[in-house]
Amino acid sequence: MSVYTPVSEIQLAAWLKRYSVGALQDVQPVAAGIENTNYFVTTSQGRYVLTLFERLPADELPFYLELMAHLARHGIPCPAPIADLADAYLSALNGKPAALVTRLPGASLDRPGVAECAELGGLLARMHLAGRSYRGYLENPRGPKWWREAAREVRPFLDGERIALLEAELGFQSQQRFPDLPRGPVHADLFRDNALFEQGRIAGVIDFYFAGVDCLLFDVAVCANDWCLCEPARDRRLEPGRTRALLEAYAGVRPFSEREREAWPVLLRAAALRFWLSRLYDFHRPRRGELVQVHDPEHFYAVLQLRAGDRDAPWIG
Amino acid sequence: MSVYTPVSEIQLAAWLKRYSVGALQDVQPVAAGIENTNYFVTTSQGRYVLTLFERLPADELPFYLELMAHLARHGIPCPAPIADLADAYLSALNGKPAALVTRLPGASLDRPGVAECAELGGLLARMHLAGRSYRGYLENPRGPKWWREAAREVRPFLDGERIALLEAELGFQSQQRFPDLPRGPVHADLFRDNALFEQGRIAGVIDFYFAGVDCLLFDVAVCANDWCLCEPARDRRLEPGRTRALLEAYAGVRPFSEREREAWPVLLRAAALRFWLSRLYDFHRPRRGELVQVHDPEHFYAVLQLRAGDRDAPWIG
Repeated sequence: MSVYTPVSEIQLAAWLKRYSVGALQDVQPVAAGIENTNYFVTTSQGRYVLTLFERLPADELPFYLELMAHLARHGIPCPAPIADLADAYLSALNGKPAALVTRLPGASLDRPGVAECAELGGLLARMHLAGRSYRGYLENPRGPKWWREAAREVRPFLDGERIALLEAELGFQSQQRFPDLPRGPVHADLFRDNALFEQGRIAGVIDFYFAGVDCLLFDVAVCANDWCLCEPARDRRLEPGRTRALLEAYAGVRPFSEREREAWPVLLRAAALRFWLSRLYDFHRPRRGELVQVHDPEHFYAVLQLRAGDRDAPWIG
Repeated sequence: MSVYTPVSEIQLAAWLKRYSVGALQDVQPVAAGIENTNYFVTTSQGRYVLTLFERLPADELPFYLELMAHLARHGIPCPAPIADLADAYLSALNGKPAALVTRLPGASLDRPGVAECAELGGLLARMHLAGRSYRGYLENPRGPKWWREAAREVRPFLDGERIALLEAELGFQSQQRFPDLPRGPVHADLFRDNALFEQGRIAGVIDFYFAGVDCLLFDVAVCANDWCLCEPARDRRLEPGRTRALLEAYAGVRPFSEREREAWPVLLRAAALRFWLSRLYDFHRPRRGELVQVHDPEHFYAVLQLRAGDRDAPWIG
């Protein structure tokens, strides 16, 4: 959510007349994120986030917006897209596809504890159940096909040790087949900064622009790899207490199948691989922008190294 | 919103499993209102209102629920129906059609001032604009046809003076034709107790179960007859300052047509007649219930008397 496309107050005030949200009162650029341009927008009616889509394919945008609308009307605390007077979620602003969504309260936590990981697990499972009746379909755009493309792009920038791990992991993952795992729409990027807490509850799950249809368990693995590390900066092993809290709360809403228990270590590795690759890609292939945030790829290199060598990923009883 | 159908905590907790809203934490019956049974429901996810529909025709319920969903996704602060895991807004509880909607913050005001009437006017106009793309259709169920039916029912309970006003007004209204007035979904019951204020803003417009398609100006007349009286208990004339604030704020979002200015005194009378009749009906034909609230019909008798004799209804510039 960096700023690539400037929007003036005059442009925004005019654009907002196509909505039923009242008059513009304030607009602030948002620094976080890497994919889109975002502004916090306050009107006489409420608080919103304006997103200008910078590189997502236009034909994929309805999948994301309709998914958020679907989850919101099932009671999942996610941004609800606002329909304009022509009853559309998507329009154009300064030459970019643009959407207005509700801005949710709360703040993300750097150091979630056992209670917050349990809160996340329950919400993630409810989101997965609610997503089952969603009719839109988009294969996870950061799935195995994308891994191979991204690997080709970033390979020239890697040393021998990293190339070896990358190729070994791509080879390992290509041999794994879990056709029986429950699938559905997954958030696929539910890191700590995408969950807004208020009074101990998740009041907002945000940034659905990496969502797609995949194994539901992949979503759980993405969360575990970020929320449940012993000490993110140093010890990337899964801390058993928080990991158990996440998995038990999830299973309390949607019990895991036996096949999912077997697949767990493989999906933890797949989730680490996916983020190592995207961070390598963003690091070595940066885009121009007024305010662009890039994450260090080395963190997920270390996570993947550890997961790939770990045959005993923590699991629940 | 009185309580006609009891729901136990055990029944409700089981019923909530069909939703993605977490576990039941608290439930409280709601005393206000007269049409449905309502409970405030708190879950681990949020705050909701459970409504059991007591006498609305089942085939009309989708009109109301889809209208609220439509307005909510256009940014209008109204209760958003929660879809269940089968993706439906409507289900059954204790033999009654039932729905779960979001509970909005704020509190209604007994004595709104000029600023609050302006806030109402702007919101009402935005609601009308947002409603134009709504595809559902239900003729206002409390329109002229219903007036005549209700008049027959309550006539035996009225004295000569009241019968005379009722018949004169029905005769007068039957001669009025305004085919060119803008029409669309209207709330049709936006009394002060159906608008929840928070920090000077309307954070919630509630109770859409009298909504229907009618002249948009009818909605404005209903509001003026309740929000803008000089002194509701004694002087039912329209107080010019608040009336002007309501109308100017509305016109700032959706300008009135010349035909609407002409129709204004007639619609003020129609709105008074409609509520006099429904209050007479509820007073003389009460229903059984654990907790039933009935309004005094004499208030709207006095309002209608005054409007019917008033050729100079306050209007803007």
